[in-house]
Amino acid sequence: MIDLKIVALAGGVGGAKLADGLAKVLQPDQITIVVNTADDFTHMGLRISPDLDTVCYTLAGLENPVTGWGRINETWNVFNQLKQMGQPDWFQLGDSDFATHIIRTFRLNAGWTLSQITHDFCYRWSIKVKVLPMSDQIIQTQIHSDEGDLEFQEYFVHRRCEPVIKGFKFLGIEDSIPAPGVMMAIEKADAVIICPSNPLVSIDPILSVPNIQAALKDKLVMAISPIIGGATVKGPAAKMFSELGIQPSAFAVAKHYGSIIDSLLIDNIDRGMAERINALGIQTSITDILMRDKVDRSRLATEIIEYIQGWEKVI
Amino acid sequence: MIDLKIVALAGGVGGAKLADGLAKVLQPDQITIVVNTADDFTHMGLRISPDLDTVCYTLAGLENPVTGWGRINETWNVFNQLKQMGQPDWFQLGDSDFATHIIRTFRLNAGWTLSQITHDFCYRWSIKVKVLPMSDQIIQTQIHSDEGDLEFQEYFVHRRCEPVIKGFKFLGIEDSIPAPGVMMAIEKADAVIICPSNPLVSIDPILSVPNIQAALKDKLVMAISPIIGGATVKGPAAKMFSELGIQPSAFAVAKHYGSIIDSLLIDNIDRGMAERINALGIQTSITDILMRDKVDRSRLATEIIEYIQGWEKVI
Repeated sequence: MIDLKIVALAGGVGGAKLADGLAKVLQPDQITIVVNTADDFTHMGLRISPDLDTVCYTLAGLENPVTGWGRINETWNVFNQLKQMGQPDWFQLGDSDFATHIIRTFRLNAGWTLSQITHDFCYRWSIKVKVLPMSDQIIQTQIHSDEGDLEFQEYFVHRRCEPVIKGFKFLGIEDSIPAPGVMMAIEKADAVIICPSNPLVSIDPILSVPNIQAALKDKLVMAISPIIGGATVKGPAAKMFSELGIQPSAFAVAKHYGSIIDSLLIDNIDRGMAERINALGIQTSITDILMRDKVDRSRLATEIIEYIQGWEKVI
Repeated sequence: MIDLKIVALAGGVGGAKLADGLAKVLQPDQITIVVNTADDFTHMGLRISPDLDTVCYTLAGLENPVTGWGRINETWNVFNQLKQMGQPDWFQLGDSDFATHIIRTFRLNAGWTLSQITHDFCYRWSIKVKVLPMSDQIIQTQIHSDEGDLEFQEYFVHRRCEPVIKGFKFLGIEDSIPAPGVMMAIEKADAVIICPSNPLVSIDPILSVPNIQAALKDKLVMAISPIIGGATVKGPAAKMFSELGIQPSAFAVAKHYGSIIDSLLIDNIDRGMAERINALGIQTSITDILMRDKVDRSRLATEIIEYIQGWEKVI
């Protein structure tokens, strides 16, 4: 039996997959998943938390494996009706997904916090591990682009990441506090895992919530590179790095996180970068990062756990 | 070509059916339908207007002919999902219906009025006649019962009209004003038709909106009895009269409306009451009131129009 407590910082699909792997190889009380909420937004009056939903749906086995968002066996009756009624159709929402957002919105308006709502969703979906939003306050990623400032989902979904990135702002982050349980989980953790999520728009918001980054100082922090062979499995991280004038690579990820991380897990294909990354003071380990299926998720999670245990013996 | 302008006051199913009949036999600019909104309510954060929706769905040919509420060819995916998530299931909402309520709620929160929203819905559903809520303000029927005060839908749907009625209050009505267009439509109307809707909880709220009742004084007002042979076709009107100590009948309807109406259309089965009703100073006419199908709707509407035209010649 592994005696280890882990906090995983996660964004969308990549984060959700690794979180699922970790949940499979650890006991529920050994892992807390802290999820980005900076791309949450309000659509048609409904409050939507894309990363929280992707993580929870994945942990519950309800995720759509094809799209990477939304639910499996989904139907589209409300969406089609809304479209017929002249409503915008750029953000697709299935019927089961609508139920999630209707409950979330209703409860937020009734005074529940996002943490409380997420806790109840996890209970309903039989999710045993603890899933926490990074904060209960509203934080909103704003994209500075060559076409002006855009809300994240406007950029990400509506404009399909086409505008050229110039920078980011996480509106509201200065006044935010970590959601209840986040600081405690980090304090008690033996290691913090930064999932293979977008460093710029999924992980950076979490790290920017006041006090979170400082709490990582005394912890073993291991990131898993979301960039493999200069490309991302899913999402615009590589494109974003390029547009900011940085060659997208595992090395760029290492450099971006800098002293926040102690260790970076890179893909076999990137093993040539190991020395350069080590030279940054970041220990590199190498494996097959790509999670093609559920077996891969558990395999990667097991390797990460073993690596952390080995590290524990070293330090 | 009939040269006549009509305002119809309508509640739910019975009102919707006659409104549909009138819309079939008159030109769109000849008829304005003013709909009860006092049983509107907020459910799961969504704003629902049952009577407006029943009237509009019926006029659009989208209504469910079996239930008397909701839409035809409806699916229940969101509802089933919400139920699985532990949400209350006493108020059934189909997927298409959810789309209606999502848009309405979203727009109300964005500052649209209920009139504006209804106008847009009518445009989307190709409804040519004018449909107006009685008021854009929130008015809420409260049921005084032997089990205390109940919100209307709590009484009507959740408790299936089981509590014994002691009275009603239309909360907010004193401060309400008729929706834009209501007063103008009445002013221009040659006759006002009170549809065969519940006098106590569908029509009385409309008549209680300040200025509406006064505007009817100079008009020919004809009501169609919702009570046939002592019973209602649908809904609790007869039960409510009984519980208030009044024998439910076409006569009771006549007495209830009193000097507000000039004429009451009663069913053949109630012809024995004609003299007693006439004695109230209310002209009685007699026909087959029950609208079994769409042919009946048009037939009844035609008879009403003919009656009004005859009346015009008389007075």
